[in-house]
Amino acid sequence: MELIKTVVDMRQVRLRLTEPVGFVPTMGYLHAGHISLIRQAKLDNSSVVVSIFVNPIQFDADEDFDRYPRNLERDLSQLQKEGVDVIFVPSMAEMYPTYFSSRVEVDNITQRLEGASRPKHFSGVTTVVVKLFNIIQPTRAYFGRKDIQQAIVISKMVVDLNMNLIIITLPTVREPDGLAISSRNSYLNTRERKAALVLYQSLMLAKKLWQQGERDTETLRCEMLGFIRKEPLAAIDYISIADPKTLVEREEVKPPTLVSLAVKIGETRLIDNVVLE
Amino acid sequence: MELIKTVVDMRQVRLRLTEPVGFVPTMGYLHAGHISLIRQAKLDNSSVVVSIFVNPIQFDADEDFDRYPRNLERDLSQLQKEGVDVIFVPSMAEMYPTYFSSRVEVDNITQRLEGASRPKHFSGVTTVVVKLFNIIQPTRAYFGRKDIQQAIVISKMVVDLNMNLIIITLPTVREPDGLAISSRNSYLNTRERKAALVLYQSLMLAKKLWQQGERDTETLRCEMLGFIRKEPLAAIDYISIADPKTLVEREEVKPPTLVSLAVKIGETRLIDNVVLE
Repeated sequence: MELIKTVVDMRQVRLRLTEPVGFVPTMGYLHAGHISLIRQAKLDNSSVVVSIFVNPIQFDADEDFDRYPRNLERDLSQLQKEGVDVIFVPSMAEMYPTYFSSRVEVDNITQRLEGASRPKHFSGVTTVVVKLFNIIQPTRAYFGRKDIQQAIVISKMVVDLNMNLIIITLPTVREPDGLAISSRNSYLNTRERKAALVLYQSLMLAKKLWQQGERDTETLRCEMLGFIRKEPLAAIDYISIADPKTLVEREEVKPPTLVSLAVKIGETRLIDNVVLE
Repeated sequence: MELIKTVVDMRQVRLRLTEPVGFVPTMGYLHAGHISLIRQAKLDNSSVVVSIFVNPIQFDADEDFDRYPRNLERDLSQLQKEGVDVIFVPSMAEMYPTYFSSRVEVDNITQRLEGASRPKHFSGVTTVVVKLFNIIQPTRAYFGRKDIQQAIVISKMVVDLNMNLIIITLPTVREPDGLAISSRNSYLNTRERKAALVLYQSLMLAKKLWQQGERDTETLRCEMLGFIRKEPLAAIDYISIADPKTLVEREEVKPPTLVSLAVKIGETRLIDNVVLE
């Protein structure tokens, strides 16, 4: 396993990697969700590159960039165990030198859901992902469906800009009780951890009602709202029931429909989603 | 010589091209400026790809997209003569399918000079160039210095986004009397063609004054202004004397300094520049 810190070195190492090359971009603090991406990348490709970079430009000013959890030593030992070939861990100055001033934007779908709550977020994501794709030049790149809007935005960007790689998305990995695994779960205290279950449970409630024949999205939204409001630690940011391609809100459920939500549990903002199909 | 019209076909053909691959993006209506880029690309590379695409998104609404000169037949016969390997001539629908919604932006330097007069111009240029680079994957791409801000913006974008190619810029090709060769020169009638010389002549005036020891940019600008105003068909858009990296206006000339201008001759907007170094 090679640990690479500069773009120049990464380009050198890339020339020696056996094709096809799988790539898993991460912000570190690896968990079972990342590991599932890495294992699939290992299955699909001859070489696997994982990047660890907490990308400052995808955090809005009032967000948790400074306190975002980091543990490089533990990450590296996990990646070693998984048989990853190359870890790319660039510094901030390597990724964003002085006078850096370019950005990649995807319009429309980035204004909704997460984009409405986090105005600069997706611009930061698409910009860093383009840079990483250009540096690593993977055959396939892997993203988890917990951040489903991110996966949708990146897939759209890859098509629009004719980027020469395949985007693979994999199902959300969950704790035994259903909580979507996320690095930000580490912020939760015991009471909050329990309260955080309302995200998954409200999604399952919507799914159950839909399976029982409910098609009106306003009814589903109200049921979810009522359920979550019973949890005093939870503050809803948004509940969306939308077309999974355009992210435009639907009045009536027809498969596939994306149900997604963002809820603050204490100070911690969590997201989750399910596709009704 | 292969004429390719789709992205899928271009990717196929690309796999067969001998490395290194030189690329000259054009909007067609080829002239001696383009030919000088193509010849240098031939010298530097084993294969050469030329694209012809009049890119609608780099024209502002009130600009000359519809009447921009086109002559594919003549272009192809010139390219054949030059020994170009592949001509990529995508349709509008191939480059911008319905729901296309991504863009690449370079901030700061795109707000000045041409960007100040043509608000959407550089966003259109950088977006189409990223697409073409991703489709053609050249080793080197060639741009003329007549559109010097375009070359500066693209070079900045390539560095910022870690694009894996080399940008080569070549000197402006001129008519015997000094007029910078441009597809838009075809708009000029005989009187306007003569009047258009004020661009080059005012640049030469600035250069002469500088060589004689003048360092004050305000003086140089006033001399150029006075000279151009004597031509009744000319209407100045801007005269800039700036740092060629940041495009920030200078108070004092120190090498290298970029002197550039945009002047309307009748209905035709022309640009030119010289670097004092």
